[in-house]
Amino acid sequence: MTGSARGDRRIRIALLGATGSIGRQAVDVIERDPQFEVVGLAGGRNTRLLGDQVRRLRPETAIVAADADRAGLGDLPDGTRVEVGDAALVALAGRGDLDLLVVGTGGMVSLRPVLAALEAGIPVATANKETLVAGGHLVMPIARALAAERAMDQPADPLASPLGWLRPIDSEHSAIWQCLVGERVSGIAGLILTASGGPFLDLPAAALATATAAQALRHPTWSMGAKITIDSATLANKGLEVVEAHWLYDVGYDAIDVVIHPQSIVHSAVRFVDGSIKAQLGTPDMRLPIQYALTFPERRPSPAPAPDLVAIGRLDFRAPDEARFPALRIARDAGRLGPWATGALIAADEVAVARFLAGTLDLPGIPRLLERAVERYGVRSGGVPSVDDLIALDSEIRAAWSSGAVA
Amino acid sequence: MTGSARGDRRIRIALLGATGSIGRQAVDVIERDPQFEVVGLAGGRNTRLLGDQVRRLRPETAIVAADADRAGLGDLPDGTRVEVGDAALVALAGRGDLDLLVVGTGGMVSLRPVLAALEAGIPVATANKETLVAGGHLVMPIARALAAERAMDQPADPLASPLGWLRPIDSEHSAIWQCLVGERVSGIAGLILTASGGPFLDLPAAALATATAAQALRHPTWSMGAKITIDSATLANKGLEVVEAHWLYDVGYDAIDVVIHPQSIVHSAVRFVDGSIKAQLGTPDMRLPIQYALTFPERRPSPAPAPDLVAIGRLDFRAPDEARFPALRIARDAGRLGPWATGALIAADEVAVARFLAGTLDLPGIPRLLERAVERYGVRSGGVPSVDDLIALDSEIRAAWSSGAVA
Repeated sequence: MTGSARGDRRIRIALLGATGSIGRQAVDVIERDPQFEVVGLAGGRNTRLLGDQVRRLRPETAIVAADADRAGLGDLPDGTRVEVGDAALVALAGRGDLDLLVVGTGGMVSLRPVLAALEAGIPVATANKETLVAGGHLVMPIARALAAERAMDQPADPLASPLGWLRPIDSEHSAIWQCLVGERVSGIAGLILTASGGPFLDLPAAALATATAAQALRHPTWSMGAKITIDSATLANKGLEVVEAHWLYDVGYDAIDVVIHPQSIVHSAVRFVDGSIKAQLGTPDMRLPIQYALTFPERRPSPAPAPDLVAIGRLDFRAPDEARFPALRIARDAGRLGPWATGALIAADEVAVARFLAGTLDLPGIPRLLERAVERYGVRSGGVPSVDDLIALDSEIRAAWSSGAVA
Repeated sequence: MTGSARGDRRIRIALLGATGSIGRQAVDVIERDPQFEVVGLAGGRNTRLLGDQVRRLRPETAIVAADADRAGLGDLPDGTRVEVGDAALVALAGRGDLDLLVVGTGGMVSLRPVLAALEAGIPVATANKETLVAGGHLVMPIARALAAERAMDQPADPLASPLGWLRPIDSEHSAIWQCLVGERVSGIAGLILTASGGPFLDLPAAALATATAAQALRHPTWSMGAKITIDSATLANKGLEVVEAHWLYDVGYDAIDVVIHPQSIVHSAVRFVDGSIKAQLGTPDMRLPIQYALTFPERRPSPAPAPDLVAIGRLDFRAPDEARFPALRIARDAGRLGPWATGALIAADEVAVARFLAGTLDLPGIPRLLERAVERYGVRSGGVPSVDDLIALDSEIRAAWSSGAVA
């Protein structure tokens, strides 16, 4: 499986967060297409599933969080070496022989591996929000510099977009990316992020206070992890996506609109300077944007059928209610404040959702906690945060706020 | 205004059909943007308007249909030379110093000029249906060969699409083009052409027989010429567009769907092999696709604002009723038969619409006449029609069928 030309060999992938919702679907996409070769797999707590994945995909490297997790993997193929911890993730991501790093993890843990991959000239397909919401100011300059450097050889390289060397996996950012291929940056007037509105779209403000975790986890259109499903119910998820879109596409916050679209068929859209809008539509199936990020610039057949517009009949759009769902405004304001504020926002959201799921915070408490975190940590003198600063901020907020003492 | 690099000089345009609906809007677009220089203008009967346009745009050449039309132009600038007839159109189109030929004429008259431009290596922006419906088998091979030749110098040239050197002006085909920039041909699974459904969308079949020209001319969403507005009322227009889409994008008839979309906001869409759909949306304003064809690959600010999805609220889609509007099926069948059939179709449609407007044919008579023309002229031995064959076929059908003797 070696060869000098790209066409001669398989695409070598390392996958972080293999056992999570995105990771499992990425494995599904990878297993359907023989062009992919997995050289590294990293997982979290679910070592049993990670062991199964390793036996099927036979990577050179499997990474677990701690030495105690090794046993859970079971018997592994001879060719697979097990490594442990964050330093192993960074080493895997920075291997010069990777073609693509795929990041399905949540949390701040993937920020260093993403930076390591980009510094080694490796494209990164990512579903990790922290990478951009907290670290956009660190990640994007490297991703773009790399693309600009490569584009000197290939002036019309389709990668030479605002994304640089990054490939977003979120359905909304993938939609925007798909609408931007072949377009010039000068033509972009704005972005339109769609939101299903979540399970509480039409719930009166008073009823939000008694909404339970079980209700919030019943997402009307998407099947996703618990954290992101709760974030959909508060629109915090859309707020974080606004910040991500700002970094990915270099578009100002005033030019990023959020539109409620309950059917989740239009995944997002781009508005151009000539008054044209391009939108990407698809069935709500994360394997579609995952596959696009893996096969780009090609498209390959996927298990997701195209939506049938006639069968669907109508697509609805309305403005989000920022009074009932203030997280959207809070995220936008945090974005305008800068990376300290968005770093605080995303750490606080992790804490808030965990507390809501544990029953120690009501739903309106989530945006309340977000706003307080942004107020408390969002404005600092002395420039933008480094990776160390962001990780320290994240730890500080988790330690201080998880107890419930603050909010 | 001369210079070796494209950036140093204006874009030299010749416009055929300057006084028609498309032509007038093209002049509007051209007058808003100083990068354009009009070197030639050709018009039809409305010599007074053509004279006005010549005085404003000061082209080197103005072309009228006959010597008798010269007088109607009025006083012209010293630098403008007036020429006459079809040969002058071909000579203008084939000038090696043009950057773009823009075709707004109806009818078979522009087929030779389009071929002359392509043979001279000049891109062609066209709203003329005959060029593709009758002449697609003649035009597209040249348009594509030219693009392939140029693409050897610039491998990732955004022009290297199925369109080759052609730039469609129709809003539907422009939408598809916009959705295809940056995509690979191998990724295309099918096309979705939208149709407003016209003024008789919900009229019972029985009432169609008594529909008047005045009713048919009241198009719900688009302001267009009379011929195309009647064609919208019968869906013949959409049928012709299916044939055009087949030629422009090299997609089989089975993979071109028509969807009724009464709001005319989604102008058309492309379905990809991975289940993704990309759609282009805009306000119904022909200046937008005209401008895109003129400024491609750039986008420039236009007078058309982007549609406000929240204000619009909903977009509806339903299947066309081919029982009440059989022209769609007839056109598709003609397309499958080949260029003799589609040549007959478009000539017969010209005759049928003229007779409907004159009150000598009822609305259901239009598809009836189309079907008979396809049956009578659509299957011939001895290969595909040449330009001469198509012009002779057109004349024959106009002469024989205009009287009402046939249908």
